[in-house]
Amino acid sequence: MKTGRVVGTVVSPQQHPFYDGRKQLIVRYTRPDGTYADDAYAVAIDQVGAGIGQDVLVLDEGNSARQLLSLAPSGPTRAVVVGIIDAVNT
Amino acid sequence: MKTGRVVGTVVSPQQHPFYDGRKQLIVRYTRPDGTYADDAYAVAIDQVGAGIGQDVLVLDEGNSARQLLSLAPSGPTRAVVVGIIDAVNT
Amino acid sequence: MKTGRVVGTVVSPQQHPFYDGRKQLIVRYTRPDGTYADDAYAVAIDQVGAGIGQDVLVLDEGNSARQLLSLAPSGPTRAVVVGIIDAVNT
Amino acid sequence: MKTGRVVGTVVSPQQHPFYDGRKQLIVRYTRPDGTYADDAYAVAIDQVGAGIGQDVLVLDEGNSARQLLSLAPSGPTRAVVVGIIDAVNT
Amino acid sequence: MKTGRVVGTVVSPQQHPFYDGRKQLIVRYTRPDGTYADDAYAVAIDQVGAGIGQDVLVLDEGNSARQLLSLAPSGPTRAVVVGIIDAVNT
Repeated sequence: MKTGRVVGTVVSPQQHPFYDGRKQLIVRYTRPDGTYADDAYAVAIDQVGAGIGQDVLVLDEGNSARQLLSLAPSGPTRAVVVGIIDAVNT
Repeated sequence: MKTGRVVGTVVSPQQHPFYDGRKQLIVRYTRPDGTYADDAYAVAIDQVGAGIGQDVLVLDEGNSARQLLSLAPSGPTRAVVVGIIDAVNT
Repeated sequence: MKTGRVVGTVVSPQQHPFYDGRKQLIVRYTRPDGTYADDAYAVAIDQVGAGIGQDVLVLDEGNSARQLLSLAPSGPTRAVVVGIIDAVNT
Repeated sequence: MKTGRVVGTVVSPQQHPFYDGRKQLIVRYTRPDGTYADDAYAVAIDQVGAGIGQDVLVLDEGNSARQLLSLAPSGPTRAVVVGIIDAVNT
Repeated sequence: MKTGRVVGTVVSPQQHPFYDGRKQLIVRYTRPDGTYADDAYAVAIDQVGAGIGQDVLVLDEGNSARQLLSLAPSGPTRAVVVGIIDAVNT
């Protein structure tokens, strides 16, 4: 998994029907100290009600994503937001 | 998934028969602000009628790609263009 | 697999139930000489009782992770800490 | 998939028997404009009779590679050269 | 697959039992010209009797790794050294 911050949502009226009604978040990955990890990001399907500006946990693996969305073994997806981060203890 | 912009199509007369008749788009990945993410790109099979210059959503995971192309569990493919992006809300 | 060093733990009260009670470690990847590999890191589930500051082996592959957690073929996870490193012989 | 250019072949007399008799090409990845993408490359099994200096399409995904080599669901391989590129239309 | 050079072995007395008795090599990836590809490396399980300083072929894909180790479909592993490189013809 990776840590990241939600920076936007994608508006895509012309897309595969699978994605209809699923919120697609743009998540920029962050370093352990909370700064952005350069340009790394993912477009991930929201599973925890995350909003713009929130720090989140992203799981970027197809089989996991399908299981979280109760789609296994089928469903075209890869990245999912699985948690909202309260703090990082160091 | 990643966001990107279609910059070209591949012409490959000598290729595996699987790819015959499938439009192969070269998609350069873009950052959340719409600029290009350096050199990152994928050659992806079109599923939404995308053309050069359009902003798109790319799903780069083999199992997902096969399901979108109705090839699961078989079919040699990895990246698929699954949506045309209208806007990114931030 | 990769080598890394544990630098923190994630506190995420609002997350998918699967992760409840599982310690999520932030592991920064290290080079063979022990220095940090720039910004590369993973959030990995602990399987060996690793703590902050320890050098560890990280396995970052979904199917492997599920098997180590006895979740196969199901379970939303990807990276797992599978060993504590005593030394690297060169 | 990625675009690349064949720059060499690997000679490995001491290897897993699976690879005997299969031509292993070193392919440097190229950008959409045909220049090399820094140091990115793959060692890929040839499926289209590609030679040194030719521009090719590389599919770098294990399940796809196995299907192209008629090895699915088994066979230790990951990257395959699946096409020779004639041109890139932009 | 990737080309690389063995630079060390990992000593990890406190690890998952699966790894007991398996030699874990630290392999730094090399460019087609034999120089190191910056910081890229993998910890891979040896399958060909490779030693420190030797140039090797690394297969970094979980399903392939399991098949090479006769573990399929189960076994927590990802990268395996599958060949010793004698030369690269260019």
